[in-house]
Amino acid sequence: MFQKFESLSRPETARDRVIALRSLFDDLGVDAILIPKSDEYLGEYIPLCAERLAWLTSFTGSAGSALILRDSAIAFTDGRYTAQIVSQCDASIFMFEDMVSNPPSKWIQDNGSQKLQVGIDPWTLPSASVKKLQDAVDHINGTLVMLDNNPIDTIWQDQPNQPLEPVSIQPLDVAGQLTKDKLIQIKSDLSESDTDTVIIADPLSIAWIFNIRGNDIAHNPVPLARAIINKEDEPLLFIDKRKLDMEIEAYLNQLADLRPPSEFDDVLKDLGRAQARVQIDPNSSSHAISMILTDNGAQTIEAADPTSLPRAIKNNAELKGSAHAHVVDGAAMVTFIAWLKSQKPSDLTEIDVATKLENTRASMGEQHQCPLKDISFDTILGSGPNAAIIHYRVDEDSNRNLQDGEMLLVDSGGQYVSGTTDITRTIGLGKVPDNQKRYFTLVLKGMIDISLLRFPQGTRGVDIDAFARTALWKSGLDYGHGTGHGVGSYLAVHEGPQSISKRAMVKFQSGMIVSNEPGYYREDAFGVRIENLVYIHKARDIENGEQRMLGFETLTLCPIEKDLIIQSMLTKEQLDWLNSYHKRVLEELSPLIKDEDTQKWLTEATRPL
Amino acid sequence: MFQKFESLSRPETARDRVIALRSLFDDLGVDAILIPKSDEYLGEYIPLCAERLAWLTSFTGSAGSALILRDSAIAFTDGRYTAQIVSQCDASIFMFEDMVSNPPSKWIQDNGSQKLQVGIDPWTLPSASVKKLQDAVDHINGTLVMLDNNPIDTIWQDQPNQPLEPVSIQPLDVAGQLTKDKLIQIKSDLSESDTDTVIIADPLSIAWIFNIRGNDIAHNPVPLARAIINKEDEPLLFIDKRKLDMEIEAYLNQLADLRPPSEFDDVLKDLGRAQARVQIDPNSSSHAISMILTDNGAQTIEAADPTSLPRAIKNNAELKGSAHAHVVDGAAMVTFIAWLKSQKPSDLTEIDVATKLENTRASMGEQHQCPLKDISFDTILGSGPNAAIIHYRVDEDSNRNLQDGEMLLVDSGGQYVSGTTDITRTIGLGKVPDNQKRYFTLVLKGMIDISLLRFPQGTRGVDIDAFARTALWKSGLDYGHGTGHGVGSYLAVHEGPQSISKRAMVKFQSGMIVSNEPGYYREDAFGVRIENLVYIHKARDIENGEQRMLGFETLTLCPIEKDLIIQSMLTKEQLDWLNSYHKRVLEELSPLIKDEDTQKWLTEATRPL
Repeated sequence: MFQKFESLSRPETARDRVIALRSLFDDLGVDAILIPKSDEYLGEYIPLCAERLAWLTSFTGSAGSALILRDSAIAFTDGRYTAQIVSQCDASIFMFEDMVSNPPSKWIQDNGSQKLQVGIDPWTLPSASVKKLQDAVDHINGTLVMLDNNPIDTIWQDQPNQPLEPVSIQPLDVAGQLTKDKLIQIKSDLSESDTDTVIIADPLSIAWIFNIRGNDIAHNPVPLARAIINKEDEPLLFIDKRKLDMEIEAYLNQLADLRPPSEFDDVLKDLGRAQARVQIDPNSSSHAISMILTDNGAQTIEAADPTSLPRAIKNNAELKGSAHAHVVDGAAMVTFIAWLKSQKPSDLTEIDVATKLENTRASMGEQHQCPLKDISFDTILGSGPNAAIIHYRVDEDSNRNLQDGEMLLVDSGGQYVSGTTDITRTIGLGKVPDNQKRYFTLVLKGMIDISLLRFPQGTRGVDIDAFARTALWKSGLDYGHGTGHGVGSYLAVHEGPQSISKRAMVKFQSGMIVSNEPGYYREDAFGVRIENLVYIHKARDIENGEQRMLGFETLTLCPIEKDLIIQSMLTKEQLDWLNSYHKRVLEELSPLIKDEDTQKWLTEATRPL
Repeated sequence: MFQKFESLSRPETARDRVIALRSLFDDLGVDAILIPKSDEYLGEYIPLCAERLAWLTSFTGSAGSALILRDSAIAFTDGRYTAQIVSQCDASIFMFEDMVSNPPSKWIQDNGSQKLQVGIDPWTLPSASVKKLQDAVDHINGTLVMLDNNPIDTIWQDQPNQPLEPVSIQPLDVAGQLTKDKLIQIKSDLSESDTDTVIIADPLSIAWIFNIRGNDIAHNPVPLARAIINKEDEPLLFIDKRKLDMEIEAYLNQLADLRPPSEFDDVLKDLGRAQARVQIDPNSSSHAISMILTDNGAQTIEAADPTSLPRAIKNNAELKGSAHAHVVDGAAMVTFIAWLKSQKPSDLTEIDVATKLENTRASMGEQHQCPLKDISFDTILGSGPNAAIIHYRVDEDSNRNLQDGEMLLVDSGGQYVSGTTDITRTIGLGKVPDNQKRYFTLVLKGMIDISLLRFPQGTRGVDIDAFARTALWKSGLDYGHGTGHGVGSYLAVHEGPQSISKRAMVKFQSGMIVSNEPGYYREDAFGVRIENLVYIHKARDIENGEQRMLGFETLTLCPIEKDLIIQSMLTKEQLDWLNSYHKRVLEELSPLIKDEDTQKWLTEATRPL
């Protein structure tokens, strides 16, 4: 099992650890230390050895930080984890703050005492965040102290080691482009931005450039690594050789000068001494990197990671690979739902069902030579009221039995070599009240309206986000999250720069994958979300059309529960979309379904309305 | 007649005038002079005495500028006027540039010779534009020379005088708020922004604050005036007293310290010497203002004109007044269309029809004690291929006879004391081809889809612009302008900050008026636009709704031509909207229509489909 269900939080451990951290303050010359939920590679997922925030505070949510002062301590998280942080952290030690309306920088500016000295590990924060902290500290005439070592590492006795998981090659038939061609593109972009050198600090970018994958962290199949690419020279790839077997090392030696991660600092210093102009991405690169560069004389140019856009625009091999992954994943989903429908809900807990889903994915992958390498993220499997918690993660404490008459929200995905999947289906258990079906249908209308769109070149996510919402808006309802995020190719399940939301200013381009996942959540009662992955493609020529339009092609294949749909609420166009989608689901998945009962269920589930 | 149709352009005059301007260069110490289409008040419309660009170049479009160098001259305009500028300007004198892709600042930076000295009149450009010019000139080590007097005024022999049209009071029953209450609001905003003094440089804002109107410029019923508002003191209002009769002067004397415009500079200098912190709007305020302030020691704080948002959010009296204006205006439109439908198209020219429309508005206004004070803008009345020119202005040169089987696009509006109207109807002349009806119906679908929207607080124009376009997008079509602009209350027909477009980042608020005007244009063939004004209001409570939604309430009352609609292309919801709109049009306009034939036409035109 990739997913773990044990409750990781032990609130009682925090007291001694906070005391131990404070005992370092005088030696470090600080009055406060900020510990964010992030590691030296700034990814969404971090290795166990970098779970410093969870170790210190016992809070296990995916976003947050702790500011430990001499006489108080504040734990920050966002609205998704407000309840969780209170339940996981010792309230006699921590005060709680919303990190969106009152992030650490604002808290320090508003509440910090004059001349406060705040220590941070500049490896664990991007330059963009450090700038805000610096401004805040300046306001109170304080100092931001750049610590040489992470203070948690000093006091964490049984801290795990850095991961050293084996690296594999991403085959060309799914990667679709050779590393040398990717490097040519990156180097030519450098010429345009008038720099010679770029730091690639994001392990996802490293994996994409060098067509490698790894297993150092959960759910993001990448090795922790960095690179420095110079227009004229061979790239420097900083990666621990213990992760490389002989073949991989031979492969990478053709592409780069392999260096141990420990040499990274020295190379940065050399760049500084050479007064190089070095491009860095202020959002994906540790502040320590730009600090070492500028302290030693380099000039840093801030620009987006040059792989961000080419990585988002999938080539044909990547799209074909993704389609294949979605067929196998869809067959697993169908097998899973058919099984679930044959069970008595009250016999099952959420953990039972999540376990069954992961096992079904693994076994379907094995049957079809498309092994499940990981799950894309911890499955969100919430029944009844738990479905209203947008980022619910079931554990032994929250686990509950399913109940007849409830809806079960299942948001999950698989990492396959040929692609990353992410699907949400809301499943009815027994007889669901009509009232809840109404909300299901409103959400479905939004999901279909996005699927049906045609739009010109230049359209951005912000321009279309509302199409997922108008059915709800007309009913006086809405949902409090974006409509969709970008997805990688056997990389991260959340990858920009494209997205569908009110803040999505990046233009859609043919080949980008995004999720389409409107929802509706009634607190303490129920939740609905329906999610397909789609990719942007050139729409078929339209008769008498003047412009070549773009549109969405659906990747995800799995029936949408007809019993939860109030058919009269759908327009003819929406109904046609659904029937034609179901026809395709049946055609593409049937060949993979060997079990007779499952096949029967699939046929029924995809019969036209 | 408010509208003039004579062709104003005389290309042959430019040569001597450009030579005369160049003859000033040595004395002024410049190698080039930039003449923009704008006056010292930076409004969309300018008085005759400020038509310096038209006088110099003979180009009469509403946006442009000319850069006169020693050996060359460049005339800039945007895509709307590309053809017009070529036809109006002597190509042996002027080169032509697109002011969007290659504005004067960019042209200077790319093409200006080293150390070029560029003269500008800092009264005729906003600070924001001057900043760009300064950057451009710096790039070529040149100088931006701030001229003491406008150089055109030196050589323009028969330049008209500054207008001195009488000022009137905007009655409280339509203004809805006393000046003293508006001033309290502005002063309290000043406290928040930590300044004591704000310059109000926009005559629209002056008219709104002091509840006065004027007639100094075409179509915008305002007097040219400025004010300085200080938190503690009586406002200073700079206005020529010759525009004020005794009663108006007495009224204004209660509200402000009246000063002649000639004293404005001295007061700015005094503010400078007092080292005041002064708020200015860099987009609506002449660069000269901030220059005088800072040169004399003041500190300028850049912020949006404090009246911009309260002016956009109409109070109940303003909304009621607007509704009243729209009933009278609708009755005029109906009378006009019924008349047009009774004529033989080929007997009429575009000028005949535009003249009839203005006369009908004037006479309907007179009948109903709601006199037409001006038209909101020069009527855009394009038949056949002329309808495809988005900002077509008919004159004696472009005038053509209507033809059977064509569509006529009429975009027009009236200025009434109780409100400003702006309506576009596309009218079929005789039997219009089905093909063109298809495009009409696609545009109508977009217009109705915007009308039907419900949306939560916080929604911006950018979030909904695409709803006006999706019907076209699905057919491979689009239009090249925004969907809607804000509209004033017996003020300007184009007033922000709200709008509906891809750049519209201002949140909608209850009481804002916007236009809803999708279109479709087939060059050299035909054009369709359908426009209603709507205002944002709280939508009726929705059963089981969780949020109070906003929606649009339609102000414009005039039938949409049913003969141009392909009914099968409308959804039931769209058809219901149309029928219910027509029902309301009939009910509200019938009482005003005395003519029997017109009444008969109206009844038929609004009969449900």
